[in-house]
Amino acid sequence: MTAAALPAAASAQQNQHPSIFITRQEATEIRASAGKYPLLDRSIAAARAMVARAMANPTDVPQPGEAGGYAHERHKQNYREMQAAGLLFAITGDEKYARFVRDMLEKYAVLYPTLGAHPLNKNQSAGKLFHQSLNDATWLVATSIAYDCIHDWLKPAERARFEKNVFRPMAEWLSTEHAQEFDRIHNHGTWAAASVGMLGYVIGDTSYVNRALYGTKRDKTGGFLRQLDLLFSPDGYYMEGPYYIRYALMPFFYFAEAVERKQPSVGIYAYRDSILKKGLYSAVQTAYPNGIFPPINDASRTMAVDAPEVTLAVDLAYRRYGANQNLLGIANLQNAVVLNGAGLGVARAMAARSTPPAVGFGSVEFTDGHDGQRGGLGILRSGTGRDASMLLMKYGVHGQGHGHFDKLHFTFFDGGREVVPDYGFSRWINIEPKFGGRYLPENDTYAMQTVAHNTVVVDQTTQAAGKESASEAAWGERHWFDARNPNAQGMSARADKFYPGVGMQRTMLLLRDARLPYPVVVDLYRLASGAEHTYDYPVHFRGPLIATSVKYQANTTRLEPVGQKFGYEHLWKEASGTSDSTVRLTWLDGSRYYTITTAAAPGTEVLFARTGAADPNFNLIAEPLMLVRRRAADHTFASVIEPHGYFNEAQERSEQARPRIQQVRLVGSDAQATVVEVTGEGGLRWTVMATNGAANATAQHSATFGGRTYTWTGNFAVEGLQAPR
Amino acid sequence: MTAAALPAAASAQQNQHPSIFITRQEATEIRASAGKYPLLDRSIAAARAMVARAMANPTDVPQPGEAGGYAHERHKQNYREMQAAGLLFAITGDEKYARFVRDMLEKYAVLYPTLGAHPLNKNQSAGKLFHQSLNDATWLVATSIAYDCIHDWLKPAERARFEKNVFRPMAEWLSTEHAQEFDRIHNHGTWAAASVGMLGYVIGDTSYVNRALYGTKRDKTGGFLRQLDLLFSPDGYYMEGPYYIRYALMPFFYFAEAVERKQPSVGIYAYRDSILKKGLYSAVQTAYPNGIFPPINDASRTMAVDAPEVTLAVDLAYRRYGANQNLLGIANLQNAVVLNGAGLGVARAMAARSTPPAVGFGSVEFTDGHDGQRGGLGILRSGTGRDASMLLMKYGVHGQGHGHFDKLHFTFFDGGREVVPDYGFSRWINIEPKFGGRYLPENDTYAMQTVAHNTVVVDQTTQAAGKESASEAAWGERHWFDARNPNAQGMSARADKFYPGVGMQRTMLLLRDARLPYPVVVDLYRLASGAEHTYDYPVHFRGPLIATSVKYQANTTRLEPVGQKFGYEHLWKEASGTSDSTVRLTWLDGSRYYTITTAAAPGTEVLFARTGAADPNFNLIAEPLMLVRRRAADHTFASVIEPHGYFNEAQERSEQARPRIQQVRLVGSDAQATVVEVTGEGGLRWTVMATNGAANATAQHSATFGGRTYTWTGNFAVEGLQAPR
Repeated sequence: MTAAALPAAASAQQNQHPSIFITRQEATEIRASAGKYPLLDRSIAAARAMVARAMANPTDVPQPGEAGGYAHERHKQNYREMQAAGLLFAITGDEKYARFVRDMLEKYAVLYPTLGAHPLNKNQSAGKLFHQSLNDATWLVATSIAYDCIHDWLKPAERARFEKNVFRPMAEWLSTEHAQEFDRIHNHGTWAAASVGMLGYVIGDTSYVNRALYGTKRDKTGGFLRQLDLLFSPDGYYMEGPYYIRYALMPFFYFAEAVERKQPSVGIYAYRDSILKKGLYSAVQTAYPNGIFPPINDASRTMAVDAPEVTLAVDLAYRRYGANQNLLGIANLQNAVVLNGAGLGVARAMAARSTPPAVGFGSVEFTDGHDGQRGGLGILRSGTGRDASMLLMKYGVHGQGHGHFDKLHFTFFDGGREVVPDYGFSRWINIEPKFGGRYLPENDTYAMQTVAHNTVVVDQTTQAAGKESASEAAWGERHWFDARNPNAQGMSARADKFYPGVGMQRTMLLLRDARLPYPVVVDLYRLASGAEHTYDYPVHFRGPLIATSVKYQANTTRLEPVGQKFGYEHLWKEASGTSDSTVRLTWLDGSRYYTITTAAAPGTEVLFARTGAADPNFNLIAEPLMLVRRRAADHTFASVIEPHGYFNEAQERSEQARPRIQQVRLVGSDAQATVVEVTGEGGLRWTVMATNGAANATAQHSATFGGRTYTWTGNFAVEGLQAPR
Repeated sequence: MTAAALPAAASAQQNQHPSIFITRQEATEIRASAGKYPLLDRSIAAARAMVARAMANPTDVPQPGEAGGYAHERHKQNYREMQAAGLLFAITGDEKYARFVRDMLEKYAVLYPTLGAHPLNKNQSAGKLFHQSLNDATWLVATSIAYDCIHDWLKPAERARFEKNVFRPMAEWLSTEHAQEFDRIHNHGTWAAASVGMLGYVIGDTSYVNRALYGTKRDKTGGFLRQLDLLFSPDGYYMEGPYYIRYALMPFFYFAEAVERKQPSVGIYAYRDSILKKGLYSAVQTAYPNGIFPPINDASRTMAVDAPEVTLAVDLAYRRYGANQNLLGIANLQNAVVLNGAGLGVARAMAARSTPPAVGFGSVEFTDGHDGQRGGLGILRSGTGRDASMLLMKYGVHGQGHGHFDKLHFTFFDGGREVVPDYGFSRWINIEPKFGGRYLPENDTYAMQTVAHNTVVVDQTTQAAGKESASEAAWGERHWFDARNPNAQGMSARADKFYPGVGMQRTMLLLRDARLPYPVVVDLYRLASGAEHTYDYPVHFRGPLIATSVKYQANTTRLEPVGQKFGYEHLWKEASGTSDSTVRLTWLDGSRYYTITTAAAPGTEVLFARTGAADPNFNLIAEPLMLVRRRAADHTFASVIEPHGYFNEAQERSEQARPRIQQVRLVGSDAQATVVEVTGEGGLRWTVMATNGAANATAQHSATFGGRTYTWTGNFAVEGLQAPR
């Protein structure tokens, strides 16, 4: 497959319209399916309703405005409406839909030639309709589909006008004026390439298609294929994380579908060992049991698998990569399909089932980095459905501009909620009065910082000193991952290059014991250094503090920040104390209690803090955290997180607000192993043994601490665990 | 009806069992209805499941323990299980249920005689099984029903043992040892009377029945009838507020039902012009459109019409007071019925409908005080279903020990949420580690204080100087209430006796205008005094601050409380500024924006604060508020609260984050009238004219401000309002 082979293939089908997303034959089949497949009927009805609402009001193509403002939202809604109307015209043949698209394009054909670079671009690559070129590209993706659908219905003079006044200048703006952005290995580059390439197929301009596939230099230093090479790990994990792959799924799949239809010889879906399939699957496999993507890196707290981008990818993958029950399960959550043959296929498969399919992903580890050699992401799951537990640990690459300084960070989902959370991004997305809906300064000063995460902060500084380039130059290291035993799953990783002279290793287990109603987390965080440091072990939580074993002094009449920089300036110090014994904190989240029990260590300082300091614009969300602070050269934080009890305020019921795990004792921890003893009610006594040295899942390991030798087989073992029946 | 007439009536039916809640005939009808009425089937299934779970484990009747702890919850669960098992025995005749009750009672017959007053009663009237006698009474109510159901099945020796060891000593403890609590005109007294009276009917002890109905002195200075006389206003409004009437509905209706069955000659349901019917209706009519009771006075934020106490009352009222569609609508929300003939009736009526009935309460004013002469509670509603708006203003009596110092306080419900909220109580109910689940010190120091509410605080002190007795000695005064025009509803009240020398009058309107998507609130709060005071107008809200017109200084590196006492010590001062012009605050709550726009006044100080100071035990919920502060002798705060726009983070959609109302201008305000001009986008210009002097709903009123004379008919008028079509 070379660039030279392209023009012929593309030109062979270039005169058929529509063709990049839907064909006349698919449209006919959809029309013939009316009333048969509820999911399809509902999706068509939704599109009809959206366009009907639009038709009931005068079309408005306003002068560009600020992000999140009226004009911004209007232009976004316009392209959604044009795309829906175009597809409805293809499906129904009703000319009112074609007229709607044409009339709106006429207005763009008047406006667009008058526009220069958007004045409010704020150091981003400027668009013309929008403040950033990214949004212009999303406009062009949707409108290319709409234009394709009404292409043959338009008069030649109309087509010529739209192409001359809008489409070609916009494609040039995106690919020539912003060539650097276009060639960027980044989701912005993907959107730009997809938009220009899709237009190229519709208007039969091979040069657009080629620059989209191979970059502006046509040498694969940029462009879509290069993005497929570099943006995913071999497992399909997307370095920016689930929120951004969710966003990027749309241009990836729209353009891939167009390529497959117009240039099947490219073999785009098979490219790089079916990397698009892996990309989709790895994205949806990171989702919490409630369907929401974990908000690691810059991400909202609510983005879920029912986002339209995922619906598109699921439907196309179901068609292109073969029927899969998990995809159907996700489609069931989405409750919508796209309006082409792929959506028809999913709706038909769903209608053929008597019960809705469930989603059943298991524990999984993804490698990170385009070569798969740059750490990874570990996910342990237990249970099924929305009440399943999920433990996620992050030990891959930084993840570009949206990456956070959060190596060895974890989140824990239980009881239908993210109970040990990631803060997500600091952004009120699309809310115009909040800094135009853009990323806020607090995203840099707090959300990205290490202390905003559940991973140890050394000397109250951020990993890699908070420098993106330095963080990009390193990555976490996979140590071992073992989910074979559903009652005792574990994962271990290292991050030695983020604080000079400090080695960090974290081992996390997800255990089920018959004596405990829910799975519990064991967390062994080992720090080793030749010199003394201050180690802060943060636990972020939501909901009220119920109890703590720490004797603390509360700051009741004056609050000051915990520190001055690296995110600490955003934390009000509400209380602090010292402890030589077990540190226990119980909080309430939803209908369940959670207790973290951390092994005693002499002179441990404990701080209770809350976000909200240094926040002059009320941008932060006020949420509590506990910091367990230890000054030492070598130290291991050994903790258990136990969900327990039940609370229902409306019913005024509370059960078992106290934990069953009573003690966590660190027996020993060194470069070879960590051994911990956990005791609790009902004779519960576990000996947790974890391999810190060379991983070997089948060999016998041993360690001697305090005169006693512990031996175990595999990378970890838990003696005394009572497996549930 | 006199006490003398009682014994004969009671004894006539005393040998039938069961009889106080269910009869053999009702049980037979229920048995014959199996599979016919889903609501009944579901309720029986739930009872069976509860008892089945109980039977699967050993019965435990533990030594009494602390509130919210295991023993406390166990004893509560025991009486629920006994009651369910008793009713299931009556319905099914399956002896396993009778044995379950008997075996548990045997354990109580061993334990109870060994118990003295509970040591952890904390200045409350002590129980024996529980820390307070109130809980012992609730135990006896449920267990009397259970005992009634298995009475004839038990051996005479068993009955004798239970009565001697448990029932009679408990009734004596509640009515003799705690005679004062028993005679108290308070929900605790109602529980005590109901429990002793219900037991009296079951065991045929007229003396118990008489003291329950007429008080321990049998002279109606205490007892059930006296409570019916004094605890409700003539409209049925319960002075403690909706949360507590919800709780009290259970003893009121359980005992009333027993009286009706055993002594129909009392005419209990007709008593005081059907006060029990009014009590139930007034309770459910205060509920927000989502079914949750407004948390005025001491109250949780989540108690709703589907509480079991309300289910009981709705079912009995439906039977005793006649079929009513609103009751059926509430039963539909409850999704459960009680297990007797009344529950059967509701389930049958529900099954006969093809569509579930909706609840449709309108605007209503309730008088307060047993004589109906002590202020009231006003509720304005607009719209239907869960998206309806509701504005509540509180201007009645203090409401005893659970009352708050909150005259002229309001709450606003919109978009499915309480968006201008009441803090509710400060209590983590039944959560044992949180002060035994009891009321917290912060309930007194914050939740009850005036500043915790949306009503003006004078000189940073609480109403009536925070003294309950002084607050009980006064009450708000009704001024006018007019909900005839659904597009312009209004209410007005005064509270002149809560701050020495300061007259307070609040007029609130709920308006619909065709140019605004949602109803808006107009708030005119007039203060008049012979001397200068500091007036703080608080607006509590939830969710992020989106924008404000106030140029403020934020406290980013140090927080101190707003004040030292009367609840101000619990408020961190996050920011403050002064303004001579309109004060505007926009926040986000759920999927909608809210803006309060307050008329300009020179030298207005504005404080942004958050609860959480002086909170050494992390008992408070951290929530923001704005305080608009003005130093003056006479001042009127004139404001509009406007819901607007739409936000959906998951979909990344934001629309109209800026309000449409632009200005609120106070034209004039005096003892006769307040006139305000409101202007906004789209030519919106309202002139709001409200009568402050003598109310007259039909007369013409006029006022002259700034040389212009305004005239209107009725207590208020809004010129320029465009009624929606």
